[in-house]
Amino acid sequence: MSLTIGIDIGGTKVAGGVVDEHGRIIEKLKRPTPAASPARTAQVIVEVVSTLRTRHQVEAVGLGAAGFVDDDRGSVLFAPHLAWREEPLRKQVADLVGLPVVVENDANASAWAELRFGAARDQEHVLLIAVGTGIGAGLVLSGEVYRGRWGLAGEPGHYRVVPDGRLCGCGNRGCWEQYASGNALEYEARDFARRTPGGAVRLLQLSGGSLDGIGGQQITRAASEGDPGALRCFDIVGGWLGQGLADLAAILDPGCFIIGGGVSEAGDLLLNPARAAFEKGLTGGHHRPSAEIRRAALGADAGLVGAADLARGH
Amino acid sequence: MSLTIGIDIGGTKVAGGVVDEHGRIIEKLKRPTPAASPARTAQVIVEVVSTLRTRHQVEAVGLGAAGFVDDDRGSVLFAPHLAWREEPLRKQVADLVGLPVVVENDANASAWAELRFGAARDQEHVLLIAVGTGIGAGLVLSGEVYRGRWGLAGEPGHYRVVPDGRLCGCGNRGCWEQYASGNALEYEARDFARRTPGGAVRLLQLSGGSLDGIGGQQITRAASEGDPGALRCFDIVGGWLGQGLADLAAILDPGCFIIGGGVSEAGDLLLNPARAAFEKGLTGGHHRPSAEIRRAALGADAGLVGAADLARGH
Repeated sequence: MSLTIGIDIGGTKVAGGVVDEHGRIIEKLKRPTPAASPARTAQVIVEVVSTLRTRHQVEAVGLGAAGFVDDDRGSVLFAPHLAWREEPLRKQVADLVGLPVVVENDANASAWAELRFGAARDQEHVLLIAVGTGIGAGLVLSGEVYRGRWGLAGEPGHYRVVPDGRLCGCGNRGCWEQYASGNALEYEARDFARRTPGGAVRLLQLSGGSLDGIGGQQITRAASEGDPGALRCFDIVGGWLGQGLADLAAILDPGCFIIGGGVSEAGDLLLNPARAAFEKGLTGGHHRPSAEIRRAALGADAGLVGAADLARGH
Repeated sequence: MSLTIGIDIGGTKVAGGVVDEHGRIIEKLKRPTPAASPARTAQVIVEVVSTLRTRHQVEAVGLGAAGFVDDDRGSVLFAPHLAWREEPLRKQVADLVGLPVVVENDANASAWAELRFGAARDQEHVLLIAVGTGIGAGLVLSGEVYRGRWGLAGEPGHYRVVPDGRLCGCGNRGCWEQYASGNALEYEARDFARRTPGGAVRLLQLSGGSLDGIGGQQITRAASEGDPGALRCFDIVGGWLGQGLADLAAILDPGCFIIGGGVSEAGDLLLNPARAAFEKGLTGGHHRPSAEIRRAALGADAGLVGAADLARGH
């Protein structure tokens, strides 16, 4: 049995797991992330690895992080939710644990996990779109994680869908993730409740009466009860999602899209309008086969499992 | 010396050439395309191949066509400027000439030629954007032509840049090629001349006084003379081009973009505003290296040379 450790480094917690060659998690640990300090984050990673190694014999360590990972898969160039700037994470961790280490963007790792063990096992060309607060993405093309020239491929959340559109955290305007994410869902629901409080009775009830209390969970619950206002929010955001997938299909022609991230837990509430918009927006739709849109199968563990698997045999 | 034949099948002419392993064209022929008849087009291809073979010993034939080529590289599924619908071109031609034949999308073939022999010889991850009447594109990723799941990758001309924007020939609205192409340049110049005839004196002079006479050549000539109205048209269209390249870089992180097609003959008139918009629109611009924007080196022969090279050793 070949075991590796996958570590998912998030803005609030570090999750580490021992993973076998079938993608099964044998043991898992979590620690808070000391996000402000790269050095202390590396220490936490080392501590998690050391603890897991007391009980399992492992070959290698895969680190998945939300951020730009360089083309050598050794450093995190920039991580929006962590204090990392050009952090040589692989060397720091490898020196301390004495095992081979690879660093991978977390969405790339998730895409790989879905292809190997999840919803895309029958596919070679897969785009994973993680719809959370923003949009993360991982590309697997011709059966390999595709990283681009500098390791920075897979940021479609920041392609522009509306000229002079909503301001994005990246500094530009009109980025896709401002229209097709959890933040966008909240934006639509709060905007609706502000303008049409009479139509948003159920949403406001679920949120304790405050606009700011309307979040993804409240909107999903109201929509699953059939509330028209909440359903409309999913239609709008799902529509932007599906149009974006049509744009990506024009560029990359994948065999399937895997939709993950927190908002994907709403299932067909999100995916049905996305599928409709995709069909409508896809160029050459009548003369071509086209990608399926599937929900991710591995949930929040995908990044950890994928990072562990990418470390195997490296 | 290893020789192959490359054939570029355009809407108006079929160009065939004998190409050596250094990408040099040894001999070249042209025939009009009987575009309305797939069978007669195949006959013209066979005739060109036969004529060239009377003087050269060749190993294989590569056919490049503007259209959707299937993932098996045997059939043209759909060609906008030809009467082809699911045309098994490889078999038709191979049966008649008795040589190995591959079929490739013409922009893919051009991208391959630029990587092997042209402006991208130092690169592994290249996006060729052919700015002509519309936008064609070819992707070379990790040193290989990337075709996607069904052979249909590389149609960024039909990703949406403006919701509810200009109507496109593909049936959708707001496609990139409606804003960053030769047609878009004409649209801007004619619109300008219609609204501001006093500012378009030189443009109208060059076009014989008629709005419909304003075409790419007139606009390029006026702009190269410093005419402010014509320069403004290039700024607008180059701006849309550069923003699209920034979007593609967010998704694919290529090492360079090669800009080809008829409009690229305007050189820096087009590329300088494109570069400025690319820098501005690229997400994470201060934390990342980014792609160069280069002009194609092989001109109108790129498709023929690329198709010939892709046929080599197949």
